[in-house]
Amino acid sequence: MINYDAFFSRAAQNSQGSAIRRMGVMAVRVPDMISFAPGYPDPVTFAWDDFREITTELLGSRDGSVLQYGPTRGHPPLIDGLIEMLNERGIRATTEELLITTGSQQGLDLVGRVLLDPGDVVLVELPTYTGAITAFRNTQAAMVGVRQEADGIDLDDLDRVLARERAAGRRVRFLYVVPNFQNPTGLLIGLEKRKRLLEWASRTDMLIVEDDPYGALYFEDAATAADTRPIKADDEEGRVLYLSSFSKTLAPGFRVAWVAAPSPLVAKLEVAKQAEDLLTGGLDQRIVYEAWKRGVLARQVSKLRAFYQHKRTVMEQTLRAELRGLLSWPEPRGGFFLWAALPKRISADAMLPRAVEQKVIYVAGSAFFVDGRGANLMRLSFSLPSPERIAEGVRRLAVVVREAMAGHREPVEI
Amino acid sequence: MINYDAFFSRAAQNSQGSAIRRMGVMAVRVPDMISFAPGYPDPVTFAWDDFREITTELLGSRDGSVLQYGPTRGHPPLIDGLIEMLNERGIRATTEELLITTGSQQGLDLVGRVLLDPGDVVLVELPTYTGAITAFRNTQAAMVGVRQEADGIDLDDLDRVLARERAAGRRVRFLYVVPNFQNPTGLLIGLEKRKRLLEWASRTDMLIVEDDPYGALYFEDAATAADTRPIKADDEEGRVLYLSSFSKTLAPGFRVAWVAAPSPLVAKLEVAKQAEDLLTGGLDQRIVYEAWKRGVLARQVSKLRAFYQHKRTVMEQTLRAELRGLLSWPEPRGGFFLWAALPKRISADAMLPRAVEQKVIYVAGSAFFVDGRGANLMRLSFSLPSPERIAEGVRRLAVVVREAMAGHREPVEI
Repeated sequence: MINYDAFFSRAAQNSQGSAIRRMGVMAVRVPDMISFAPGYPDPVTFAWDDFREITTELLGSRDGSVLQYGPTRGHPPLIDGLIEMLNERGIRATTEELLITTGSQQGLDLVGRVLLDPGDVVLVELPTYTGAITAFRNTQAAMVGVRQEADGIDLDDLDRVLARERAAGRRVRFLYVVPNFQNPTGLLIGLEKRKRLLEWASRTDMLIVEDDPYGALYFEDAATAADTRPIKADDEEGRVLYLSSFSKTLAPGFRVAWVAAPSPLVAKLEVAKQAEDLLTGGLDQRIVYEAWKRGVLARQVSKLRAFYQHKRTVMEQTLRAELRGLLSWPEPRGGFFLWAALPKRISADAMLPRAVEQKVIYVAGSAFFVDGRGANLMRLSFSLPSPERIAEGVRRLAVVVREAMAGHREPVEI
Repeated sequence: MINYDAFFSRAAQNSQGSAIRRMGVMAVRVPDMISFAPGYPDPVTFAWDDFREITTELLGSRDGSVLQYGPTRGHPPLIDGLIEMLNERGIRATTEELLITTGSQQGLDLVGRVLLDPGDVVLVELPTYTGAITAFRNTQAAMVGVRQEADGIDLDDLDRVLARERAAGRRVRFLYVVPNFQNPTGLLIGLEKRKRLLEWASRTDMLIVEDDPYGALYFEDAATAADTRPIKADDEEGRVLYLSSFSKTLAPGFRVAWVAAPSPLVAKLEVAKQAEDLLTGGLDQRIVYEAWKRGVLARQVSKLRAFYQHKRTVMEQTLRAELRGLLSWPEPRGGFFLWAALPKRISADAMLPRAVEQKVIYVAGSAFFVDGRGANLMRLSFSLPSPERIAEGVRRLAVVVREAMAGHREPVEI
């Protein structure tokens, strides 16, 4: 066979697969594996009957447009629906400010294409979502991390990092944040801090890319809708590109998400999408639209808050029972993730093979850091396994952690 | 509002929307417009009842994987199905050599990302498919055209152009061809020429990107399955990336297509897709898979050959009746397009506003050329309008062409 190395673009030469998706593949291959790895919604929650009824009607209508090519911007009624949905989150958007994307991953990818040149810098939270890192790195931009505190990104560090990067002559293009139940930490950016981020963007002439897949999934014992108010809701100057999705609230298999941004940016994102996949699936967009219009989405979201809150509670209770004093974490107030810190000398990466032997799996924290840190951290997703499996998975994990703590495992002789 | 110009990447600054899609937008806005512009399949042919039955079963199964995240490579049973489908086209592919994409547009985009750096050269047929031009230009590569003859690409010109570009110090990355019922010309590359293209690739150490959305849609009065044998079928060295799609045979709204290529290339394409949209729609992939497994696809393709052949015949007959001697074209032996040449002094671009007044629309040929030529050419798509509307549209077009020939229209006084 030919050696293809010489044929690859620079981007392809440097490209790397996702650690999370590798974990996902591993998880399905091992029988009885309990996976805390991928941020998958639980399919038992999907509105199967509603989706079937809607789809039967859509395909029964023989309306050609359902399965035909359609506008790159998206299905117009769904765009109108998004205006209402965003209004409930405090965001005023017009049709010219909206683009439907093939999942939020495409939104991130398009943002990268439209805003980043090779060598540019993107500021990201430390840690941050791996899918964003991958999308932005594809443009050969560099990610530079900003520290987080209990109420999200550290504004002093943000100023420091921006000043340092600019002083070094690098072009800093935007700040990427996940303000609601961040992936992987589960943290919320405080409301006051969100306003100060807008002031920062104005003062430093920066854009903010706000990624909000989890905002609707707050846990009512720990957060309110008001706590999740998007940064975009107070964006007077037009400095925020807001991304959100139906993947966590309806189903990921539909691949329907959206970007709300100032119209000149959306116009460029649309052209980039046209080159990338022409349009988002027509049937999928219509199913999502009907699910919203018929109140399925509202019912789902309300149900999911309680559903995932319970799973979170089971995970926290079992972690406390099994690993009190060995593991610490910020309480997840919504979303899918618990971000657990092991004692500093324990490496979550090194512990992973033993965890696989014990049939439990997680994503090692280092995957979410752009500066090589995070070795003692783990992202534990509680969204997919049943409460019973969560408890059992934590018990398995406890065996692994206790072993690691005890230095119990002898080095393998070769 | 902020001026966003300074925020755009170089790619975004240079990006342009598709002329074809602009035509499409114009067509739907004007009542009674007859559009020969977009290469849309006719939705009356879609297998509505089969799709409804399949989807009802899929959603009734409550099988979580149907709507969950899934492998970036694609739904494994569909990949296995593709191996069989490709085998019927003479192509031997393994699972490691296949990637399912979100439409063929994504396949083109991923190929660009993985193979092209800014300043690289892609060789394309003159004229060629605009979607490919857009995708490759996004990487800031340059397109360089190669002439076509009646049996497709001119091999002498191909050698000449490659030698010239290499002598100028440019890195030529691959040749992009649409060998079956090319968009926009409708031409077939001759079988002997296909083999010589493989010899050329081997001799010059090049790759070939073979785009084949229309191969199955040959017209039995003018071509056979054997005439459409893919270049990839005889690709011993692994120099061909083969793209095809279900958009023209099942429905575009599903956004399901694929790439078959040597495994090291597919591995890179997969990583690029992971960053771009994670996966192709799960429900869509399963509908397509079931439609193939249940024989719906085979029935469709057989029906579509006769269906579009009839439309082609109506268009040709009416063109001959209305515009004999004024318009010439190669006979479409398959696919969706008739490529019509006006007398040299007539500009299809300049004629377009008058055509819109007459409520008929086409894509001006210049959109398909990367060297500014093609002013007197038109792509007339016969796939979407009914036979009656095709005949009426040609009659309207005849009025416009005759006017243009007569120099009948006075210049507008300002």
